[in-house]
Amino acid sequence: MDREQALEIVKEQISGKRYIHTLGVMESAIELAKQYGVDEKKAEIAAIFHDYAKFRTKTEMKDIIDTHGIPADLLEYNAELWHAPVGAVLVEKVVGISDNEILDAIRYHTSGRAGMTKLDKVIYLADYIEPNRDFPGVEEVRELARKSLELALIKALQNTISFLLNRNQAVYPETINFYNDLIMKQGDEVYGE
Amino acid sequence: MDREQALEIVKEQISGKRYIHTLGVMESAIELAKQYGVDEKKAEIAAIFHDYAKFRTKTEMKDIIDTHGIPADLLEYNAELWHAPVGAVLVEKVVGISDNEILDAIRYHTSGRAGMTKLDKVIYLADYIEPNRDFPGVEEVRELARKSLELALIKALQNTISFLLNRNQAVYPETINFYNDLIMKQGDEVYGE
Repeated sequence: MDREQALEIVKEQISGKRYIHTLGVMESAIELAKQYGVDEKKAEIAAIFHDYAKFRTKTEMKDIIDTHGIPADLLEYNAELWHAPVGAVLVEKVVGISDNEILDAIRYHTSGRAGMTKLDKVIYLADYIEPNRDFPGVEEVRELARKSLELALIKALQNTISFLLNRNQAVYPETINFYNDLIMKQGDEVYGE
Repeated sequence: MDREQALEIVKEQISGKRYIHTLGVMESAIELAKQYGVDEKKAEIAAIFHDYAKFRTKTEMKDIIDTHGIPADLLEYNAELWHAPVGAVLVEKVVGISDNEILDAIRYHTSGRAGMTKLDKVIYLADYIEPNRDFPGVEEVRELARKSLELALIKALQNTISFLLNRNQAVYPETINFYNDLIMKQGDEVYGE
């Protein structure tokens, strides 16, 4: 599938603002993929479709979670997490993308997981630092992203988990698994060119 | 076992400073037990023995973890966590205490776990707020402890997890399970008298 075709499909699913965000994620994902030796085409497609399910109703997302083998404990956590695995299901079934690396990058782009692949990490980080993002700490993560994929992700995760703690929100266990994984593998960082 | 007997046993295992901390935990644990309807005698004994293994060498603790069914993943995390489950093993085998509620309160006093009992919570919180403790945020948790066991614990966990994040340290998954449990059961708080 080429870029224009993919963008046309996703444009119908999301708001104009979310579409601009998607273009930003695409741009950042391709740049990170280039820098860290990840397949640029897979990064492009995963980025374009990462928020495919963002505007589905909670009822529809819950139904897909219940019937497509998505861990049911997700329903106990913030609904912001749901669109990612639901998106992976719909992008496979409705759009017809079958590449599991791309589908996983969509699936884990909000929660993270233990054992994130380099493509997963590129999409997670691109979603955090794309040029339209503007929140406290984002510039620091952008700077780190120029030096190390993993160090940038550690800072992004620390910011995200702190954000949840400060708002009395639960932290999805896979997010901590992702963070712990990064901390324990420090020293194995992937440095960019 | 009476208090004097228990204190005599533990005094031989720990430093003078740690013994003073233990007396503080005992005092706070009995007070919290009274306030929140927990068995005061169990709270007293669990508090006295909670740091029984604090001064064992890492080699000895690792050996006990390896051979007594303690989850091996603990060894990948901060060694500060090890003395709690090791203490539960030694307090059972060497001191001869067989009450599982007391042993669990010792076992989980540093990591926490999903499904903490009220006795577990009292020991965890007493260890955090005992009168000799002096660190940023402790007074706020002491004040919350007068109103709600659970709200005080949520704040203590938020402080502890933030502390770990700020120092680039991993967060043991059971600690997040404990925190998430408290957040999800908000509204079921146990209020004191």
